[in-house]
Amino acid sequence: MLLKVKKLDIDSGEFSVILNEEDAKEMSIAGQDRVRLKTDKSSIIGIVLTSKQSVDRGEIGIFTKTWEKMKLNGDDKITVTPTTKPESVEIIKKKMDGLELTTEEIHTLIRDISDHALSNIELTAYVTALYINGMNLRETADLTKSMVEFGDSIDFDRPVYDLHSIGGLPGNTITLIVVPIVAAAGLLIPKTSSRAISSACGTADIVEVFMNATFTANELSAIAEKTNGTMAWGGGISMAPADDIIIKVEYPLGIDPHPQMLASIMSKKKATGVDFLAIDIPVGPETKIKTVEEGVKFANEFVELGKLLDIKVECAISYGDQPMGRAIGPAVETIEVIKILEGSDYPRSMVEKSCEMAGMILEMAGMREGTKRAYEILKSGKAFKKFQEIVEAQGGIKDITSDKIKLGKYKQEIYASKNGYLKKASNRAFVKIVRAAGSPRDHGAGVILNKKLGQAVLKGELLYTIYADSEHKLKHAVELSRKLKPMRTEGIILDRVPSYSMLDRDKPSAWDYMDKDLLKSDDPENNKND
Amino acid sequence: MLLKVKKLDIDSGEFSVILNEEDAKEMSIAGQDRVRLKTDKSSIIGIVLTSKQSVDRGEIGIFTKTWEKMKLNGDDKITVTPTTKPESVEIIKKKMDGLELTTEEIHTLIRDISDHALSNIELTAYVTALYINGMNLRETADLTKSMVEFGDSIDFDRPVYDLHSIGGLPGNTITLIVVPIVAAAGLLIPKTSSRAISSACGTADIVEVFMNATFTANELSAIAEKTNGTMAWGGGISMAPADDIIIKVEYPLGIDPHPQMLASIMSKKKATGVDFLAIDIPVGPETKIKTVEEGVKFANEFVELGKLLDIKVECAISYGDQPMGRAIGPAVETIEVIKILEGSDYPRSMVEKSCEMAGMILEMAGMREGTKRAYEILKSGKAFKKFQEIVEAQGGIKDITSDKIKLGKYKQEIYASKNGYLKKASNRAFVKIVRAAGSPRDHGAGVILNKKLGQAVLKGELLYTIYADSEHKLKHAVELSRKLKPMRTEGIILDRVPSYSMLDRDKPSAWDYMDKDLLKSDDPENNKND
Repeated sequence: MLLKVKKLDIDSGEFSVILNEEDAKEMSIAGQDRVRLKTDKSSIIGIVLTSKQSVDRGEIGIFTKTWEKMKLNGDDKITVTPTTKPESVEIIKKKMDGLELTTEEIHTLIRDISDHALSNIELTAYVTALYINGMNLRETADLTKSMVEFGDSIDFDRPVYDLHSIGGLPGNTITLIVVPIVAAAGLLIPKTSSRAISSACGTADIVEVFMNATFTANELSAIAEKTNGTMAWGGGISMAPADDIIIKVEYPLGIDPHPQMLASIMSKKKATGVDFLAIDIPVGPETKIKTVEEGVKFANEFVELGKLLDIKVECAISYGDQPMGRAIGPAVETIEVIKILEGSDYPRSMVEKSCEMAGMILEMAGMREGTKRAYEILKSGKAFKKFQEIVEAQGGIKDITSDKIKLGKYKQEIYASKNGYLKKASNRAFVKIVRAAGSPRDHGAGVILNKKLGQAVLKGELLYTIYADSEHKLKHAVELSRKLKPMRTEGIILDRVPSYSMLDRDKPSAWDYMDKDLLKSDDPENNKND
Repeated sequence: MLLKVKKLDIDSGEFSVILNEEDAKEMSIAGQDRVRLKTDKSSIIGIVLTSKQSVDRGEIGIFTKTWEKMKLNGDDKITVTPTTKPESVEIIKKKMDGLELTTEEIHTLIRDISDHALSNIELTAYVTALYINGMNLRETADLTKSMVEFGDSIDFDRPVYDLHSIGGLPGNTITLIVVPIVAAAGLLIPKTSSRAISSACGTADIVEVFMNATFTANELSAIAEKTNGTMAWGGGISMAPADDIIIKVEYPLGIDPHPQMLASIMSKKKATGVDFLAIDIPVGPETKIKTVEEGVKFANEFVELGKLLDIKVECAISYGDQPMGRAIGPAVETIEVIKILEGSDYPRSMVEKSCEMAGMILEMAGMREGTKRAYEILKSGKAFKKFQEIVEAQGGIKDITSDKIKLGKYKQEIYASKNGYLKKASNRAFVKIVRAAGSPRDHGAGVILNKKLGQAVLKGELLYTIYADSEHKLKHAVELSRKLKPMRTEGIILDRVPSYSMLDRDKPSAWDYMDKDLLKSDDPENNKND
């Protein structure tokens, strides 16, 4: 059926089109069915919605995404033909049934996803099945290769180094310190990062506080050639476009299936021609990886997958019992990182980890005492100079300094209600609070921690501050923090079971008679947990 | 934010609304986020799409489904407030992680689904997780009860009998024979059926060829009081509305998760006050249930689930190696069934099974020799009279007879390419072919089988005929039938391995010299497979 286009400026996330109900009936088409859309310029598969009045008979309503993909003009006509489900639907069902997929099947699946040929319902069935049934290493390598094949790639003519953190640890912004150190040492590190799926904010979200993150393959390549380093958004470069399509259904579910996570990471590395890769695997009860044993298993998977993909991989299992550093959220993390680049040794955990990871990369390039060398580059100011150079090359704030970054307009301080030591600082609860405050979309949304695990806390002392860009989101985040209680303090005596009377929990404890100045000391140099 | 409504006549299947991108930004809302929509008349949760031009600032685009649910008028204003994800998203994740859900969690989940509070992405994650991880009997009973709670129920003041087939067997239209027999015997059988999910067509799809299937609870109750029996669509009665919402994402995936299937069946029975239930479980390599052992296990689940729900259940494990009867598709199955009601004893398999199942119900009501009695009622013409009475009560064709039903306009006959016995008649392949021909939406789409398993077939004899309402769908179905080869004939000698020369497979075989009239005899009385 030949239909006249009618532009509907709606972004539905799928290649949807709207048919008049009568036209649809004539073609025996119902909602969610597929049609081939054809002009002399292009031909794609669309998913049908039907309408009685929005489009007249003889018309076809075209959503923004479809309009752009087909490069339509206002007086174009489209030939619409009913078509069947793509083969991938049966392949997804095979994975739902717990079966291994062949190389060919994975190739077909990723081709269909890259072509936007699958509906959100089908994509969701895929990520859910993958989350539950997983994939073996052979399937994962095939998944990675297919994702690279249907996207852009960049070639460099010298060795490419890279860093990756598997995430799950709020505040873990080491990329913005490691990349400048490594680039300043003369190595090529065209780093790309992702946006948050279930975390508080991804490095790509943070970077956008002060510079562009979205580049074409050519632009990224040019910046890397000039500065040795980039800090960009992977998805903007059309490398492994399947990944970004998949993320759009993972995000509302807050899931990140294991094989998809591996392939997502490795496909971006493969597409930027990475030869040497350092991977940070934070371990803790509230990160993605719970135990060191699990971390080592995961590390081995990366190493083996690297072999199938021709990438030399080295992994670091790192401490993740509480948030890294003291900041969670785009603006607050940016400020913390730039202060370190400007010369601060605080928070120590951030400085130590960044230099360790940068050192690992320097050693992969054959340098000795990598960590020491990385720290020297950081302290010399060369890393900060390199950082400013990259920020300018990525179209960001010129001569950037930490005081040029704005915090959220609204804030609420949360105080300790009793004396004790900080016993809990929950990654998961802080992620939820920061997301409720508006992160990653609202740059000002975030939390600054004033206490870290093991520190003494006095009743009435500041525990953390919540920031937000909007009042209702601040309110929502504060309510959530009251419900989740992300921090807990405990005395040496955890509880008492009185036999003679009910214990008055509000009456003064030993704490109240002790030397306050001594307890208040939270000099970061004296606190190994900070 | 207070926004002016703008009606967009689009049926998206979700409670979607469109916000102007700038308004959305101001509220820090992005696509797929949730908002509460409030007028003085109603308050629901909507899922956001954003647009630059379709709606102006200060406007909110409302899709058909949302418009009707909120009972809006053209000059209404809606207060829009950002809101968080419903609790059910975490509950779905728990099932994805393979954990058992509590009574309370299942209640919350089904409440949210019934309220249309979940997006298609979330619903898909639920059915996929259920398909893979399943539920135990306690969870399934809770699921059933919750589905009943959030829907309409019907009370009758005398015992209610019912029939159910779990499906998976094409052509299995026994409902249209069993209900008239049981109702003619004076028992109350307010039967409701479902539409096809992955089958060729459901009983509710077939019924719509000649009468209404969609009734309110009151209407259904009134028809049942008057005629003793109904043959209606369950989903039209707003019993267990969650089920129909779930089916909308199961359908495009072609799945029907086990616990959801159990709950879907039993909730509809519970909501119509069923006391006694006969269940047909077809078993065969290409039905839902592969072996008799599996069928017995399934039957026990029904019996036990019935106990938790106060329904007396009896199951029949039935033969399902090939399609029931000779017809698959709405119109062709209708004709076959009415011919039996008119007096035909052909196809024998349909007559036998219908009388067995009806007899089982008569025996549950305390009558003796149920099958014999059922056959007597059928042969006496009382069942046909009752059928006509119900059809008229449901607003269908008056004095309906088989010759009033129209076949599809387009047809293609498929002939045998060699002599032999019919060795295969694939349920699954015929379902795919009939669906490709347009079933269940196109009533004329279908297949009539001319041969059944074990029958002699001569080269050039008619194997089956494909019908369709549209030419391109007929073409598609015929192509598919060539690819799938749903029927296969074999001689007594299945293959030969010649040592001296290549065998000429086209040269005449023993068949070609035998008495054709003898072989052609496919008198249904002489064929136990028909």
